[in-house]
Amino acid sequence: MIPNYITDDVITRALREDVHYLDLSCEYLFAPGARSRAYLLAKAPGVLCGIEVFCRVFRLLDESCTFDLKCGDGARLAKGDVLLEFDGPTTVLLQGERTALNLLQHLCGIATATSEVVQALEGTGATVCDTRKTLPGLRALQKYAVACGGGRNHRYNLSDGVMLKDNHIDACGSIEAAVARVRAKVGHMVKIEVETRDLAEVRQALAAGADVIMLDNMTLDQMREAVAWVRANASAHVWLEASGDITAQNARRVAKTGVDILSLGALTHSVRAMNISMKLR
Amino acid sequence: MIPNYITDDVITRALREDVHYLDLSCEYLFAPGARSRAYLLAKAPGVLCGIEVFCRVFRLLDESCTFDLKCGDGARLAKGDVLLEFDGPTTVLLQGERTALNLLQHLCGIATATSEVVQALEGTGATVCDTRKTLPGLRALQKYAVACGGGRNHRYNLSDGVMLKDNHIDACGSIEAAVARVRAKVGHMVKIEVETRDLAEVRQALAAGADVIMLDNMTLDQMREAVAWVRANASAHVWLEASGDITAQNARRVAKTGVDILSLGALTHSVRAMNISMKLR
Amino acid sequence: MIPNYITDDVITRALREDVHYLDLSCEYLFAPGARSRAYLLAKAPGVLCGIEVFCRVFRLLDESCTFDLKCGDGARLAKGDVLLEFDGPTTVLLQGERTALNLLQHLCGIATATSEVVQALEGTGATVCDTRKTLPGLRALQKYAVACGGGRNHRYNLSDGVMLKDNHIDACGSIEAAVARVRAKVGHMVKIEVETRDLAEVRQALAAGADVIMLDNMTLDQMREAVAWVRANASAHVWLEASGDITAQNARRVAKTGVDILSLGALTHSVRAMNISMKLR
Amino acid sequence: MIPNYITDDVITRALREDVHYLDLSCEYLFAPGARSRAYLLAKAPGVLCGIEVFCRVFRLLDESCTFDLKCGDGARLAKGDVLLEFDGPTTVLLQGERTALNLLQHLCGIATATSEVVQALEGTGATVCDTRKTLPGLRALQKYAVACGGGRNHRYNLSDGVMLKDNHIDACGSIEAAVARVRAKVGHMVKIEVETRDLAEVRQALAAGADVIMLDNMTLDQMREAVAWVRANASAHVWLEASGDITAQNARRVAKTGVDILSLGALTHSVRAMNISMKLR
Amino acid sequence: MIPNYITDDVITRALREDVHYLDLSCEYLFAPGARSRAYLLAKAPGVLCGIEVFCRVFRLLDESCTFDLKCGDGARLAKGDVLLEFDGPTTVLLQGERTALNLLQHLCGIATATSEVVQALEGTGATVCDTRKTLPGLRALQKYAVACGGGRNHRYNLSDGVMLKDNHIDACGSIEAAVARVRAKVGHMVKIEVETRDLAEVRQALAAGADVIMLDNMTLDQMREAVAWVRANASAHVWLEASGDITAQNARRVAKTGVDILSLGALTHSVRAMNISMKLR
Amino acid sequence: MIPNYITDDVITRALREDVHYLDLSCEYLFAPGARSRAYLLAKAPGVLCGIEVFCRVFRLLDESCTFDLKCGDGARLAKGDVLLEFDGPTTVLLQGERTALNLLQHLCGIATATSEVVQALEGTGATVCDTRKTLPGLRALQKYAVACGGGRNHRYNLSDGVMLKDNHIDACGSIEAAVARVRAKVGHMVKIEVETRDLAEVRQALAAGADVIMLDNMTLDQMREAVAWVRANASAHVWLEASGDITAQNARRVAKTGVDILSLGALTHSVRAMNISMKLR
Repeated sequence: MIPNYITDDVITRALREDVHYLDLSCEYLFAPGARSRAYLLAKAPGVLCGIEVFCRVFRLLDESCTFDLKCGDGARLAKGDVLLEFDGPTTVLLQGERTALNLLQHLCGIATATSEVVQALEGTGATVCDTRKTLPGLRALQKYAVACGGGRNHRYNLSDGVMLKDNHIDACGSIEAAVARVRAKVGHMVKIEVETRDLAEVRQALAAGADVIMLDNMTLDQMREAVAWVRANASAHVWLEASGDITAQNARRVAKTGVDILSLGALTHSVRAMNISMKLR
Repeated sequence: MIPNYITDDVITRALREDVHYLDLSCEYLFAPGARSRAYLLAKAPGVLCGIEVFCRVFRLLDESCTFDLKCGDGARLAKGDVLLEFDGPTTVLLQGERTALNLLQHLCGIATATSEVVQALEGTGATVCDTRKTLPGLRALQKYAVACGGGRNHRYNLSDGVMLKDNHIDACGSIEAAVARVRAKVGHMVKIEVETRDLAEVRQALAAGADVIMLDNMTLDQMREAVAWVRANASAHVWLEASGDITAQNARRVAKTGVDILSLGALTHSVRAMNISMKLR
Repeated sequence: MIPNYITDDVITRALREDVHYLDLSCEYLFAPGARSRAYLLAKAPGVLCGIEVFCRVFRLLDESCTFDLKCGDGARLAKGDVLLEFDGPTTVLLQGERTALNLLQHLCGIATATSEVVQALEGTGATVCDTRKTLPGLRALQKYAVACGGGRNHRYNLSDGVMLKDNHIDACGSIEAAVARVRAKVGHMVKIEVETRDLAEVRQALAAGADVIMLDNMTLDQMREAVAWVRANASAHVWLEASGDITAQNARRVAKTGVDILSLGALTHSVRAMNISMKLR
Repeated sequence: MIPNYITDDVITRALREDVHYLDLSCEYLFAPGARSRAYLLAKAPGVLCGIEVFCRVFRLLDESCTFDLKCGDGARLAKGDVLLEFDGPTTVLLQGERTALNLLQHLCGIATATSEVVQALEGTGATVCDTRKTLPGLRALQKYAVACGGGRNHRYNLSDGVMLKDNHIDACGSIEAAVARVRAKVGHMVKIEVETRDLAEVRQALAAGADVIMLDNMTLDQMREAVAWVRANASAHVWLEASGDITAQNARRVAKTGVDILSLGALTHSVRAMNISMKLR
Repeated sequence: MIPNYITDDVITRALREDVHYLDLSCEYLFAPGARSRAYLLAKAPGVLCGIEVFCRVFRLLDESCTFDLKCGDGARLAKGDVLLEFDGPTTVLLQGERTALNLLQHLCGIATATSEVVQALEGTGATVCDTRKTLPGLRALQKYAVACGGGRNHRYNLSDGVMLKDNHIDACGSIEAAVARVRAKVGHMVKIEVETRDLAEVRQALAAGADVIMLDNMTLDQMREAVAWVRANASAHVWLEASGDITAQNARRVAKTGVDILSLGALTHSVRAMNISMKLR
Repeated sequence: MIPNYITDDVITRALREDVHYLDLSCEYLFAPGARSRAYLLAKAPGVLCGIEVFCRVFRLLDESCTFDLKCGDGARLAKGDVLLEFDGPTTVLLQGERTALNLLQHLCGIATATSEVVQALEGTGATVCDTRKTLPGLRALQKYAVACGGGRNHRYNLSDGVMLKDNHIDACGSIEAAVARVRAKVGHMVKIEVETRDLAEVRQALAAGADVIMLDNMTLDQMREAVAWVRANASAHVWLEASGDITAQNARRVAKTGVDILSLGALTHSVRAMNISMKLR
């Protein structure tokens, strides 16, 4: 459940962009009190996400709008499904349409793409997660959409988890030194992930006490080897995260190497909007 | 040139999402005064867009950053091109990296996709434009990216142009009545576009005095017929806009029907991020 | 209909200025639950504008306020007319009074002045419009008031229409070059207006394909000549806009030259507040 | 000296209104690096106010703008005076022009009108002040303009001074009760003003210990009588403020009744913009 | 009564800090429709302040929350008192708890500490007030809490009262010059306070016509002497304010010197949160 | 290093409260160009925190201010130490003084109190951390101050860590069920802490796989027993956090039970401002 203050911010910004100061088309066409009914139609199969955000657009424009939801976020949609029936002033329905659809189609696109990867992983024990490669201003909604599609959320930002990359490590001389320096200062609720490029680095990360080890752009063989080493040598469970050019197509093969989780930037940085249309009765 | 207050808003919002209150990874790793040099590398061919926005991210974090641009927005990039060399506090370079790349890769993705359509249309006399199907909070930047890719911008929002769709028209009884009612009130700088689905509606739109006529989801034959009718019967030039499932693949065929402009929602609602990477020296 | 987010912004900013953090006068005078009834009285004739904005001030302070509107925006008021009866907590009525009246009196002032020009033009076929000479932060409301008074709105800002003035033209060498350069790039929904100072420039503007030609600070004779030339030589209708020191007094004479529209900066930059008073029963 | 955060807010809001997301006219006309020189010309006599705000508009658009001020706020201007020479990117000069002039002309209008009243009062010992009848969002700047014109500022808002009007008093039964109730609670830095309509109320206000007594809409005779009574009966100086339909024309007569200060709502609610023009060299 | 726009700002900022984008603990634990009842319990004696702010936190998260207040701001609380019963979605109660308690405990802490000083002064004729030593962003609420505890509010900020300190006076040469220079310009609703360090300065301040004289860091003897001098030589009442290391312990002794008011920075800069706990039924 | 956008927000809000629209005292006293030098003096021993925030206040008011830092955040201060010499327009120094000191004294108060607990724990192996009991709007700065004083930061908010309290657990039936339900959904970078009140709950939390176990309001004996059990039965290191009425006085005794970390709400909810004064030369 995204808090109101986040969705309302996103929506108000979008309305300022799209309606701006006056809807010239509607302003002079409709009688002040005219109301209409509308409905939402899935024009392709997918996973629903953002239906309450969609409704909120119209509520922020006019509190008299009413909604009859046919399904909730996370529902699987077939082409032709009606998702929502709603009612409001004709002007408001037409003014809010584009803003509301832009949001809904984007979020459904993310949930749908995530769910395809989740399905590909079924039975492997591995899960999929997002990254920080999100679109500016939309991170909270995009990460929520990944969760609706069955994925997990990687850290939200630089403040709630540590990931040490090559640049960080080079600056400290070694993985061991970098992990130690950070561990000595960060709070006890913070996990430390180390990015590795080969088995040597995986061993160093494990020895340094990383909570999570990222296997970045490794071959399937390298990943298998890394998994074997870590499982054999770690006293507690260390999460192994595969990263780099993973798609719905190759995800199952990656998962079968035994990694715990696969992270995909494309889930949020290269989104295909889902085709949904809004019609007036 | 997008005004500062727009880019700074987008960037600050993005930094609040991505850095939040403290970069835990950098906070305890680097000496306060440590500086580094970095560069940007195109990992795929495309059209550059957003390089000044990219730089602005780092300037907003720390005014001491300096930049050496190798090319400007609109430039064609080959795989392997270095776009920028820059310098700043190590912590700032690492903190701003993700936010800056998220923006740049998105905008280059749009400019590149637009430019593919522009190339497909070469010699046809037709041009390509965007729509209001943009991502919330990013419209100004997305439309700027379409322009960088060689496209034109359709109206920015509901306040700066009139488009009368089926819902508007149904509410007034006829295209003629709807156009007349709006024309009587809107300012003299405002153009009126009418959405049509068949030749009958095209004729009505022309008779009603529409400035622009959208041919929505018509077949190539319908479009040819509409073009012929309008060119034969209009006293002044009326813009004809083709719309509906247009792609880089079918754009040339659509253009050859004689329409003036093709509008593509996918340019901004279904963007593939371009692959660009930032490296520290 | 100005969107909520615009009026609420203007009102909240005004309340922060006028009530600030505490109404010292009311804070210690009234019992917490005390309510009063109030009404609004026109103390001069005019055109109503802003009555919903007026009510919104009190609603934003306290949702329990109720309103009984006697007339709507655009109504003609006679001295002594009661425009509104309303009810709310005594403290809220007194706190909101100044902010609400400041807005209402300003907007009625604009609508009234506009309507005087509209009346002066009756039967001439010409109309009146506003300019970008508005007061900072109040443009949407001011332009709405011009419309309430029967005027039209010129472009809202630099993003939704092109006007080429002497400075623009000088920089390009000629009207023809300037229009061509802009036409090649702007969207197909954008009109181009050219400012002219004499008949020679009018001819160039027409030849360059301007959609609107401004006759700036011309004599009545010059305007008549320009109108004749354009009507004789234009293939389609080109709007002719008269500008420069136009008042309710001289508007009819200007209109009779045959121009389409007269623009008056004073409608929004030099506003006389209309005298309306709020009284408690 | 208005703090930066106030002027920058006003200006940024104004630029968002006027430039919005792109200046279509300039975007495609000028070479990126083109710069111009401009100057400001008084086209009517008056008092300067807002010259630094004017410059700030351009600085916020581009930090490279430079300014050569010929005079400062408060200076008397003759028709034809050059107030400022400045320099900046051509695009920036043209983009900021309207916003900067809208502010400057409004503030000069206020300062000039105030100064006319101040001159009318010369030698009477009385001064002029503003009211809370200001335009939403512009109070700080408007009150600053009154001070530039030689006037004083009445309270800024409901939080920094108490004024008890008929409504307040009616609710408490008497002037005495109302003053006592407020005095018992407000801070020791707060003055209490009482609005009176006749001599009886003036006597009650004095007896109640009002720090300031407003003589509201009284005749000259009533005011003379009130002044005499208060001067004869007050142990310390009590400020007497005349209010109600005061203009530059009748101000001197009002002042000669012996009141200390005259308040004029029209100084800020009905402003005539001063004619100043900006020209490119 | 603090206006909505102030409390809502403070609360929304606090929720963005504390809930941020998702409550991970609740998100996956509770059924969507689950509701709970909760109550507030005083775990120490004190003065209530902020109970409506407390409730507002939950209302802003979800409008369906309902509240049954057992007492209002200013009430004296005994350990074990139940202050409020309320009801809402379980997730919302747990999400808002920390933010709501952080505010309430802070404000009760201020009101309680103020009330201890007020009690210490009982019968002396002197009162207590706050200062500008408040916590950033919380001034309106903190000053309201001082009033709830029975104290008065000193000026809210630099714009609504003048206090001339040693730095100001040094820059002008003398107290007399400084007061005269300010008096000549500020509005007639503004009082001038002068900070003094010894009897010589007190005399100068009185002679200069200060409305309020601060006795800063003086001994009890110095204060007595100052009081005597001022009472003997002032024609009207001049407020005397004692300042400097005043506590609940020494306040009564200070008050007995005859000063009118005592100002304590610690009331707002060094606050002990009051112990209140929220429990679910 | 707190990002600029956070400190600038806090400071600007504070300036709006404290300077508001005009500094009446300075406005009419000083010549426009007058500059002064000032310095900061510790009037009590403590730990420095916020010196860059202090300087930033003046920089935001006027960019010409210059600073000569004598020590940095985290430095130990003795009474009489000069921390900073700086220079700026006299008006700006006096306007920013209160806002800058309010922030600095508060942050130094937190760092100093934290450092007292850190010293008390020396050699025990335990460390101290903060909580979410922070003052609204100041969390980032307060947590930074705890770090400056040598403490660690507990989770920043509800989005970056899970803590399951009695209310959460009751709603799920058991600690085991609650942990399992959350673990199944949250990201792999998130730790789960469980609050326990007795040894039975500690055992359940350990069995459920909690990453951190809070020992809430336990006696020293209970804590010792819990530590022994966990150390004997956990396969990996599980953090043990003591909580409830811990002070600098009893911290060492608590630490000696063998817990890893002690959390103190009072570090941020009941802060004593440190005495620092700013003087003009």
